[in-house]
Amino acid sequence: MPPSEQAHSFQAPKGTRDFYPQDLLKKRYIEKMWRDTSIRHGFEEIDGPTFEHLDLYTVKSGEGIISELFSFRRDGGEKDYALRPEFTPTLARMYAAKAGSLGKPTKWFWQQNCYRAEKPQRGRLREFGQWNVDLIGGDNEPEAQARMDADIIAACVDLLKIAGLSSSDVLIRISSRLNLQAVMRRVNVPESSIDRFIGVWDKRAKLTSDEFEREATAVGVYPAIARALDDLVSQATDTGRALPQLFHASEFEAQQMTAFFGLLEAAGIRDWCRWDLSIARGLAYYTGMVFEVHEANGKERAIAGGGRYDKLIEMFGGPPTPAVGFGMGDVVLSLVLQDRGLMPEGKDLLDKLSAPSASLRPDIFVIANDQPESQQALRPLIAQLRRGSESTKPLHARHTYKTTKNIGKLLQEATALHARFAAIIENATEATLKNLTTGEQEKLPLDQLGTRVSKS
Amino acid sequence: MPPSEQAHSFQAPKGTRDFYPQDLLKKRYIEKMWRDTSIRHGFEEIDGPTFEHLDLYTVKSGEGIISELFSFRRDGGEKDYALRPEFTPTLARMYAAKAGSLGKPTKWFWQQNCYRAEKPQRGRLREFGQWNVDLIGGDNEPEAQARMDADIIAACVDLLKIAGLSSSDVLIRISSRLNLQAVMRRVNVPESSIDRFIGVWDKRAKLTSDEFEREATAVGVYPAIARALDDLVSQATDTGRALPQLFHASEFEAQQMTAFFGLLEAAGIRDWCRWDLSIARGLAYYTGMVFEVHEANGKERAIAGGGRYDKLIEMFGGPPTPAVGFGMGDVVLSLVLQDRGLMPEGKDLLDKLSAPSASLRPDIFVIANDQPESQQALRPLIAQLRRGSESTKPLHARHTYKTTKNIGKLLQEATALHARFAAIIENATEATLKNLTTGEQEKLPLDQLGTRVSKS
Repeated sequence: MPPSEQAHSFQAPKGTRDFYPQDLLKKRYIEKMWRDTSIRHGFEEIDGPTFEHLDLYTVKSGEGIISELFSFRRDGGEKDYALRPEFTPTLARMYAAKAGSLGKPTKWFWQQNCYRAEKPQRGRLREFGQWNVDLIGGDNEPEAQARMDADIIAACVDLLKIAGLSSSDVLIRISSRLNLQAVMRRVNVPESSIDRFIGVWDKRAKLTSDEFEREATAVGVYPAIARALDDLVSQATDTGRALPQLFHASEFEAQQMTAFFGLLEAAGIRDWCRWDLSIARGLAYYTGMVFEVHEANGKERAIAGGGRYDKLIEMFGGPPTPAVGFGMGDVVLSLVLQDRGLMPEGKDLLDKLSAPSASLRPDIFVIANDQPESQQALRPLIAQLRRGSESTKPLHARHTYKTTKNIGKLLQEATALHARFAAIIENATEATLKNLTTGEQEKLPLDQLGTRVSKS
Repeated sequence: MPPSEQAHSFQAPKGTRDFYPQDLLKKRYIEKMWRDTSIRHGFEEIDGPTFEHLDLYTVKSGEGIISELFSFRRDGGEKDYALRPEFTPTLARMYAAKAGSLGKPTKWFWQQNCYRAEKPQRGRLREFGQWNVDLIGGDNEPEAQARMDADIIAACVDLLKIAGLSSSDVLIRISSRLNLQAVMRRVNVPESSIDRFIGVWDKRAKLTSDEFEREATAVGVYPAIARALDDLVSQATDTGRALPQLFHASEFEAQQMTAFFGLLEAAGIRDWCRWDLSIARGLAYYTGMVFEVHEANGKERAIAGGGRYDKLIEMFGGPPTPAVGFGMGDVVLSLVLQDRGLMPEGKDLLDKLSAPSASLRPDIFVIANDQPESQQALRPLIAQLRRGSESTKPLHARHTYKTTKNIGKLLQEATALHARFAAIIENATEATLKNLTTGEQEKLPLDQLGTRVSKS
């Protein structure tokens, strides 16, 4: 008998992947775009264990996650473990353990594999690559938190752009748990049913009207109320660029959401986004703004999803800490890029993978002087530097989150980060660019900073 | 009660690590060196599942591995899984599944985490980063396989050099399963005890003479025979550069080992290596040359280990296929680098991590014309190009494994790999360098090829 018949026929476990070299290069291409985008936006990479104590997931993530876990216990051991189905609980644990000594805000990214014991299907595997981007802490003021929300969306959009996608290919559907709850109260969903009804609402697009009404009834919501929600939400979802019709849950929420949409506009990414209360997100820990990125034709599963989780750090033993972030998987993104001919091949793929990575040292640290027009110019300038242009490569651009306007102190912050250049915005159109290695400085129009820095 | 007292105190599982940004940069530094070295030596990256069916490990890797597995079964599931304790079984499974369509030889590297349920101690964790480098297939002739063995050692040495280590810091202790078996036969170890006695011999350094003799007795070897082996091996271990005293198991083995040590000499890495029959390696699948890399003062656990596993591919249903490779973990390497002040910090670390990576397109594909002195010059030249020098950055250098000397065909191979340059060695000192993008060519001394290619 030949050896091939004697031997076992071994296969990879269902829902996992064998990556031969040409397959893996494509995954590495996605991971390189994730890493470069994170670094340019000033996020720092962290990592944690591949498996955690089981209760890290069961206590905090809500019922949604439990049936999907690969959990295990060692022979003779006393502890239950589970492969991570997502990274956020580890991130919350790590932040809570060192909250006192971490940056305000803390900007972290993570990219590794996650594991879910779901039935494999198109866009959904049991082991998949995942990118997380999180902004934790910072001033708990509506405008400050709106900036964090907008920064998170901006990082996500820059990744999509670098991958070659445009606002006609993908749509960022934005909602808010607080707004959704306010809408539910308006149509008289009983207070005691709201949390469970959000779970049903999250699945709305996959259900027929009959199924939806049946599931609503099961969590204590009358069919007529469920229908009223359907109607109201379809009216409240914007299709243009106007500020969405909000159902304010509180004055804080109203200010935050208004500021947030203004910032999306200022960053030039409003046309990627749509206010859409049909988005709820499944996980229990979300508290405010939530969003999902979908292919415009709605064919694939969500490319990315995330939102605000202002209570989670506290649940893990840390101080009360606002936080916002998102995750993006490699499986759906690959399908979307392949389908549109945006996945490079052959020499092109090798060249893209071998191109210089984003510099871990900031290319430029931007400081606004105390003039209002300089302050106003800061965020659009940062957005443009990070995004790059035809003539300028995307840069690792940073700015302070401190309230001080003392330029000496801010230059110290730039030096501590080992930035190559600092730019001090003098007015609406000009900045002084300082080479932090040589000390040389020169005055330049704002729109020439990127070219100058990327050439040196 | 403040929230921190209400909340659970969650911790990472024993033997796993939380990587905050500064910690992770150091792991990424090691991973970058691993990746760059692999690519320059012409290895291509693969990946497989984090967990496999349990029997992939229990059937083939020998008893040594079973007690160290994190194995699990899903609630209600019928399959047993285990987190990978090492990557070689996955590699063998993947090679066996596609053997017919893969390169001859196939050169693969892999770097991800592995999991072992051992008691954590210095240099040994339950989750750790691992780098595997494997050369599979190729002509099953003693000289061809000796070249594979030497190529594997060369990749390992280049990593150690790039990390800043020298041959006075670390020692590559080389042995052979076949030679070790021959020595055991010479001192009259019973044939039926040899396999199990190799398991005991692998632990020899950790045992007192009394313990060693007791364990030998337990596997059917008389104490006097165990003592005789101790004596003979200490005589047979070389301390200088002379060819080791071999106890040939076969003519094939004799030719392979003699050629192997000649190639180590020719590649300029003989002084990193010592013939040392006290090395046995624990895993059951090794069949020939085995080696371990140790800190010269013997303080830490092994930095790397590997060897030849000529039967494993066949056991997984593939064709009979010679193979050789090694694995290196991040934990011991980190300790060795930290202890010697070789782990970069601060700005230096950021710069090293942001430096250009090895090009996935070969920088240079080297062809020897049909003259013997050109053939002779090929391997030392490749070794030097990959290693770089004060004035030349290390390059991704490739050569053919085919026996054809048809230069036209070999230039086609270079083009298919998207190489930037091809060099045709004309004699012992000169080559024609051809720019494969522009078609331009020029004649250059061999020792100027690296400088010319790295400048363009």
